Amino acid sequence: MGTIYGLGLGPGAADLMSVRADRLLRNARHVAFFRKKGKGGQARRIVDGMIPEGAVEFPMEYPVTTEIPLDDPRYNEILSSFYADCCAHLRALAEGGEDVVVLCEGDPFFYGSFMHIYARLKDVVPVEVVPAITGMSAAWTATGQPITWGDDVLTVLMGTLSEEDLLRHMQAADALVVMKLGRNLPKVRRALDAAGLTARAWLVEYAAMPGQSVTLLAEADCEKAPYFSIVIVHGQGRRP
Amino acid sequence: MGTIYGLGLGPGAADLMSVRADRLLRNARHVAFFRKKGKGGQARRIVDGMIPEGAVEFPMEYPVTTEIPLDDPRYNEILSSFYADCCAHLRALAEGGEDVVVLCEGDPFFYGSFMHIYARLKDVVPVEVVPAITGMSAAWTATGQPITWGDDVLTVLMGTLSEEDLLRHMQAADALVVMKLGRNLPKVRRALDAAGLTARAWLVEYAAMPGQSVTLLAEADCEKAPYFSIVIVHGQGRRP
Repeated sequence: MGTIYGLGLGPGAADLMSVRADRLLRNARHVAFFRKKGKGGQARRIVDGMIPEGAVEFPMEYPVTTEIPLDDPRYNEILSSFYADCCAHLRALAEGGEDVVVLCEGDPFFYGSFMHIYARLKDVVPVEVVPAITGMSAAWTATGQPITWGDDVLTVLMGTLSEEDLLRHMQAADALVVMKLGRNLPKVRRALDAAGLTARAWLVEYAAMPGQSVTLLAEADCEKAPYFSIVIVHGQGRRP
Repeated sequence: MGTIYGLGLGPGAADLMSVRADRLLRNARHVAFFRKKGKGGQARRIVDGMIPEGAVEFPMEYPVTTEIPLDDPRYNEILSSFYADCCAHLRALAEGGEDVVVLCEGDPFFYGSFMHIYARLKDVVPVEVVPAITGMSAAWTATGQPITWGDDVLTVLMGTLSEEDLLRHMQAADALVVMKLGRNLPKVRRALDAAGLTARAWLVEYAAMPGQSVTLLAEADCEKAPYFSIVIVHGQGRRP
């Protein structure tokens, strides 16, 4: 039996991959990765030039991303059948004795896509997860300020939540990370405004990638944030 | 001018360090690290065998850890003067043209000690931070379950918070990480009980280190958790 590795690649810079991930990748014979139809794929881009010659690549192309609303029952059906197909292929490889590296942006168990493969295969073939630096770590590092001090409470929110939920959680936290911004950015801004946090909010785009930018959210005028963007509000806790 | 590197080492396994951190460390001429008086230091232990021959080590020994309560004004005074002394030494090295690697467990900007050096030196000498895999990433990876799915809200809490604050935040979150357990573990347990989360709570000790253990919190009978322990409650969000 081969092993399926959920290989966390970290935030985007190849040298922020772990030594373990780097070694597994450079010795891989099968490399799988998700991508949008017609795109090269961000995970695949991170490892450009690192995949050994002769390794077999298996791109797994999302049948939908944002074309169907998340709450449409077809969304779950289509994705579920897509993941089942991917898993059938990975399982066949593992059962044939081949190890497979599945490339994962960020940390595989932190809002990642790999978990949908993991959940379906973990009791069927050996699956190992290699943790990684999260995109949010790269984002707060890019701001040049620690995200949390002392007893600060950190809350991580998805921009896909309702404005009411965003506001309620923003009011309760000391430090904040908001991900999945995209077209949700105007709603996230309104919630930050209502929570009185706009002056302390930073928009980080492409953290640890080419084109990294760090802007006070109040000075950013985009209505729609790029996919790789994160809002950061730093904690202000105890410090000697 | 030399540069001070806040070098995130990650959760504890040497091969979970980033390729960038590994390279900086293996070429270091000056290596500084925090430790408790009379102890080897966890950060220093992680890099055993990796520091180049001839490199100068600078252990920075905490004058106090838990002997004085956090809310005693002397605690801040003593630590503040300790950090000032450390910084004077690091600054002199950088001004003398030497790069210095400061070893940091976990991610330097996530509840780390390096931020106290960073805050004092960032406007004085060049300081760079290398992000890393957090201890909590290693902990949720060790449980073999993703920490968050879909729109789950993740909240990170310190066990040093009051029981009321712990409970309030636990009730609001979907997924939870609780750190700084130690003697706070009984209080954290009571808050988890009151929030109805005990059945889903895991105690992870020494994640990604020798002696790693993962136990349902309800089945762990320790009254005091080791320093390197984290409570994890997984989110149960949307999944296709």
